Amino acid sequence: MSSAYQKLHNLSKTTSLLNAVHYLLDWDQETYMPKDAIESRSLQIEMIASIVHKQKTGKPFSRALNALIDIETGEIKDERLSPAQLAALREWRRDYLRAAKLPNSFVKLFAKTTSSASHAWKTARDHNDFKAFKPYLEKVVSLCRKQADILGYTEHPYDALLDLYEPDAKTSMLTPLFSKLKHSLTELLREISEKPPIADEFLYRHCPAQQQLAFAHKLLHQMGFEPSSSRLDTSAHPFCNGMHPKDTRMTTRIHPDNIMSNIGAVMHEGGHGLYNADLPVEQYGSPLGQQVSLGIDESQSRWWETLIGQSHSFWQYFFPLLQKEFPQQFSNVSLDDFYRAINIVKPGFIRIEADEVTYNLHVVVRFELEKALIEGTLKVKDIPDAWNDKMQEYLGIRPKFDGQGCLQDIHWSLGFFGYFPTYTLGNLYSVQFFNTFESAHPNWKNQVAQGSLGFIRQWLKENIHQFGRQYTPPQLCEKVTGKPLSQDPFVNYLNKKYRTLYHLTPTL
Amino acid sequence: MSSAYQKLHNLSKTTSLLNAVHYLLDWDQETYMPKDAIESRSLQIEMIASIVHKQKTGKPFSRALNALIDIETGEIKDERLSPAQLAALREWRRDYLRAAKLPNSFVKLFAKTTSSASHAWKTARDHNDFKAFKPYLEKVVSLCRKQADILGYTEHPYDALLDLYEPDAKTSMLTPLFSKLKHSLTELLREISEKPPIADEFLYRHCPAQQQLAFAHKLLHQMGFEPSSSRLDTSAHPFCNGMHPKDTRMTTRIHPDNIMSNIGAVMHEGGHGLYNADLPVEQYGSPLGQQVSLGIDESQSRWWETLIGQSHSFWQYFFPLLQKEFPQQFSNVSLDDFYRAINIVKPGFIRIEADEVTYNLHVVVRFELEKALIEGTLKVKDIPDAWNDKMQEYLGIRPKFDGQGCLQDIHWSLGFFGYFPTYTLGNLYSVQFFNTFESAHPNWKNQVAQGSLGFIRQWLKENIHQFGRQYTPPQLCEKVTGKPLSQDPFVNYLNKKYRTLYHLTPTL
Repeated sequence: MSSAYQKLHNLSKTTSLLNAVHYLLDWDQETYMPKDAIESRSLQIEMIASIVHKQKTGKPFSRALNALIDIETGEIKDERLSPAQLAALREWRRDYLRAAKLPNSFVKLFAKTTSSASHAWKTARDHNDFKAFKPYLEKVVSLCRKQADILGYTEHPYDALLDLYEPDAKTSMLTPLFSKLKHSLTELLREISEKPPIADEFLYRHCPAQQQLAFAHKLLHQMGFEPSSSRLDTSAHPFCNGMHPKDTRMTTRIHPDNIMSNIGAVMHEGGHGLYNADLPVEQYGSPLGQQVSLGIDESQSRWWETLIGQSHSFWQYFFPLLQKEFPQQFSNVSLDDFYRAINIVKPGFIRIEADEVTYNLHVVVRFELEKALIEGTLKVKDIPDAWNDKMQEYLGIRPKFDGQGCLQDIHWSLGFFGYFPTYTLGNLYSVQFFNTFESAHPNWKNQVAQGSLGFIRQWLKENIHQFGRQYTPPQLCEKVTGKPLSQDPFVNYLNKKYRTLYHLTPTL
Repeated sequence: MSSAYQKLHNLSKTTSLLNAVHYLLDWDQETYMPKDAIESRSLQIEMIASIVHKQKTGKPFSRALNALIDIETGEIKDERLSPAQLAALREWRRDYLRAAKLPNSFVKLFAKTTSSASHAWKTARDHNDFKAFKPYLEKVVSLCRKQADILGYTEHPYDALLDLYEPDAKTSMLTPLFSKLKHSLTELLREISEKPPIADEFLYRHCPAQQQLAFAHKLLHQMGFEPSSSRLDTSAHPFCNGMHPKDTRMTTRIHPDNIMSNIGAVMHEGGHGLYNADLPVEQYGSPLGQQVSLGIDESQSRWWETLIGQSHSFWQYFFPLLQKEFPQQFSNVSLDDFYRAINIVKPGFIRIEADEVTYNLHVVVRFELEKALIEGTLKVKDIPDAWNDKMQEYLGIRPKFDGQGCLQDIHWSLGFFGYFPTYTLGNLYSVQFFNTFESAHPNWKNQVAQGSLGFIRQWLKENIHQFGRQYTPPQLCEKVTGKPLSQDPFVNYLNKKYRTLYHLTPTL
């Protein structure tokens, strides 16, 4: 390996190590930190973030990068590098240009504004008081529009923001994709709504927290996690923090009267966790050791949470174990009834509680609104009405107060415009990838029904995880599936699964 | 407050915040970190330590400091500052001179050498193989002698190392102090050894871990800790990490068959914890918001562990609670028998398991050896024999293998020469402080016997904690007790307590 490349990798590794420290500060804050420590914790995080920003944009790094790739033109200066290394340079340059474009003064103002806005959001949500949040959100939206201008775009200002989370995603690609998806989902939902509801009251029987945790550990063990390189803790909102492939921290939430909330969270965060654990450790600190995008990362979590964790095969193995752990709660429930119950489709107000069919309609609502906000065709003051109208139109229900409507998510208060679409991209990627997986393992259901999950992890590692950011999301999609991303595989999957479940006429 | 002073304080605060991040990395490593993460954790710690060292010795800090105090001469440049601020400048200058004296190359070599040595120590200890450790320790001793030369001294090279842990401590002061102490302790121990042993087998009855932890939380609660600003976890070796006055992290160890090991650890770390929690929060980041020295810090832990936690009054209140929590184990034990058992005196090989009478003899052994090593009058190869001879002479027992002798402590492998004496200084300070406390609260025993501990915390806060490093250890001792440090109060305390306990003739 060229010594110039090694030098760049080493510099970048120091940044990754500091980022990992940032993640630990976050993890600790959500799990074990005494609450009165929040003020000093915020200062610690601010300080680490500022050092990271300086490292990412400082002369030593830019000089090392420019020695291998012309930062301005993107022209490669060392032709002996491997294709993977060339891809790493492309990504390093992408990150550098993005970080260097934002002046320090803007970064600080953005951090300060979103910090106040997220505090204001919490209070506003608890009091269903959008008006109190409005002036804060107006400032954030204005800053995000400014951010788009600074970062630059060729087609649409929203592209500049999307690119922060999903490199190379374009509004012009998402708009028709989401539109077609919306059409298919609302149609399927309409048909399901006409069918009698599925019984699921047994899912809400009391299951003690300690036993739920023990079951969660069994799931993670079966997915292939080892306690020597991973942890599961509890927090208000489940998350996965990958500090290093050898240090994967996942959390879940335990509601004693809703065991599936915990199981879903564990499978979801476990999916993120396997992606982190199976990144190539020798590439730590380089783009080749990082997740491709939020969308691809979400495809991994949804893969395990829904495609595996809500499949009949999975519960053929795990339902008897669940019954053994919770005999009082589940011994009189059949596997088929359980399977139908965990896949119930029911329009609700809250995105994070939504089923597979309605989930992406929640995302579409947000995508359409934030795109309009960034374009300037929607005013912040008009958000509640616009939100409620769209909920009515797509899901057939209208929030009664803003806490179950436009105040439910923290994202906008933090300035995360362009983030929501990655949730849906994750779902679409997951199924499109799964179809390729299914061709390679036509017998997967039998294996999963016997509790074998290792071959799935192996397939994901070989086809996705091992490459880090060598391929952009669209390139990876083509490489794995042979086709660009489309809503069709996902829609077909839902139709096949839910038309059977709800005894509907199959689609042609 | 002068803006130059405020600027200096702000710069220093950034260093304290980064140090707190370092403490969190340490805390996490000992409590929750998956073990395979150790390699990346070491790199994270190395990076934070290096940034801290740069901040402490960099131009921005030295310029801000030099604007207020001439770094070379110590002359104050701003006469409007308060006495506390002048003291802070003195301490900032002390820290700066020390950090700036050590060249970066030396710091790195020291870190690398002690890192290998501590790894080698662990293996050597487990195999009782001093010879394998010898070459590593020789390098460390040689570096520590070099360190003393770089740091400088006027009387004795060991002074330069002592000063790292106990500012202004001198070998010429410690040598006679420790010598007199040794004389008194060996005499008391000799008399005790002639008495029949105290029964204590009930202390080793099985007490389940979860219940032990619950009792530990009760103790900390009674000492005044709140879960909103402190935590108790478990680790292989108990410690207290104060990241901020609002974030005190203590750990204990639980041996189900030795409950006093846990209780002693909790009271000990609780003592350190209260010192951290009661430092003036508005002084965070300045020397006025820091512990005076390791010796003074240890006086706080030993105060709670021994003077309070092994007192009869304390257990008048807590023994019934212990009996209630563990009726099978303690209902047939009397308070008096319990009190005698937890204060049993019995020479042993291991320092950290030693009683109040023998503990400081262990420290004297180490003090005498490390002083000779730094002087150059003892060779590393001769340590085992020298150690065993001293153990024989002072404690009347001779280690059979080096794991229970000179290989038991990690300190030397880490290059911590000059650290051990602070353990004994802590014991001496604690009793000398306690005598002043007793004059102010002659009724303390009755209050403690009723479970009241808040007035003790308050006294420590007002007399010690609130000042941070405004006074040096000798100054603080004079201020609190009106006298310089002496071994007499401690020796008198031991004689009074243990002559009663063992029915010996009182001293005159």
